[in-house]
Amino acid sequence: MAASAAPEAIFGDDPGYRAAVVDLLGVISYGEISAFERLAEDAKMAPDVEDKLALAQMAAHELTKVAPLHDRVRELGADPFEAMAPFRVALDAFHRHTAPADWLEGMVKAYVGDGLANDFYREIAAFLDPATRDLVVVSMDEDGGHSAFVVDRVRAVIAADHRVGGRLALWGRRLMGEALTQAQRVAVDRDSLTALLTGGVDRPGLDLAALGRMFTRLTERHAERMAELGLDS
Amino acid sequence: MAASAAPEAIFGDDPGYRAAVVDLLGVISYGEISAFERLAEDAKMAPDVEDKLALAQMAAHELTKVAPLHDRVRELGADPFEAMAPFRVALDAFHRHTAPADWLEGMVKAYVGDGLANDFYREIAAFLDPATRDLVVVSMDEDGGHSAFVVDRVRAVIAADHRVGGRLALWGRRLMGEALTQAQRVAVDRDSLTALLTGGVDRPGLDLAALGRMFTRLTERHAERMAELGLDS
Repeated sequence: MAASAAPEAIFGDDPGYRAAVVDLLGVISYGEISAFERLAEDAKMAPDVEDKLALAQMAAHELTKVAPLHDRVRELGADPFEAMAPFRVALDAFHRHTAPADWLEGMVKAYVGDGLANDFYREIAAFLDPATRDLVVVSMDEDGGHSAFVVDRVRAVIAADHRVGGRLALWGRRLMGEALTQAQRVAVDRDSLTALLTGGVDRPGLDLAALGRMFTRLTERHAERMAELGLDS
Repeated sequence: MAASAAPEAIFGDDPGYRAAVVDLLGVISYGEISAFERLAEDAKMAPDVEDKLALAQMAAHELTKVAPLHDRVRELGADPFEAMAPFRVALDAFHRHTAPADWLEGMVKAYVGDGLANDFYREIAAFLDPATRDLVVVSMDEDGGHSAFVVDRVRAVIAADHRVGGRLALWGRRLMGEALTQAQRVAVDRDSLTALLTGGVDRPGLDLAALGRMFTRLTERHAERMAELGLDS
């Protein structure tokens, strides 16, 4: 399997790139763990056991993505828990600042937050060596089909009470705003991650205009997801 | 696969047995869901991300057992959420009355409670048709190797501070007592489940002496698990 190629063969003489990959796998895997925690917590607000089980299964699915990412970090000679440590403050802050007030907000967050994170990692994946890219893309690929129920539930509630749609639209904007705030914090703190996007020795990167287009794509996809839920963005 | 045999071929003319199997699959699957909830909640008390991840993985593993049990309930023509409903009060009460005060109590509960439930279901499995028995035994079989870390952690803490052992030994007795209290409540409420053990038309069951020996076995295995953790029982 390509992902098991010797690190030297992949990273050549760019130690900055290797550090960036460890950072990236660290932030993704801590993101999965903190998503598990929040989803498991939010599942408690479910109105019935069926909805609770659906959200709990989304939570458990996030956690299954952690082990292969940690294995890869170890292959790269780093400790996965040390790799995750620099991102705890930003991710914990994101979740603390976006604690859902009720079950509906929890479902919208599960759907929109997970989608946004996956889009962002897919954008970054374009700048990775093939083995790491495959690992990241596979870990993002599927939500196990669990989130379709979110779309059903949210649309049904909005159909029954249009005022709810206004509140949830504001909630979606707050999620996006808080995600950008914390992403900005990470970008400032972790030069190696930023350099993944802006390029390095022998590696092409994004200029400012291309970076702007990337954020436009992320925003557009966020708007599409909100629309799938029947919400303005 | 044997588990997909037509229900008629398995249950013959004993509708009480069929009801008992639906009950049994209902209580086991609600047990997994509530174990997920408690483990996910207790994981928040972990002293570090490594321990949190280990307990979260135990939680997620419980949840993977639910889907095959629910599939079987549907094959039997029943609704899994209705099948679980009669057991919510007893299982929720068990968890409410045994909410761990700290991380250590949470780990002991994860280890001892899960083991006790599995032992009990294995005992009941002896009275099931082969297809249902296989399903139940497979769902109990493995904890995914996640609980070995509990033994390590608890033993290490006791080695460092012997007073902790006394407190956790009491905690283990409380877990066992509360489990028996709630099992008794379920036995009184659900005649069909009780009849699984005590027998029915064409089905052998346990007399009072055999029932007593079963409880002795369960208690002995509980004591063995406590000893593995370095605790008196």
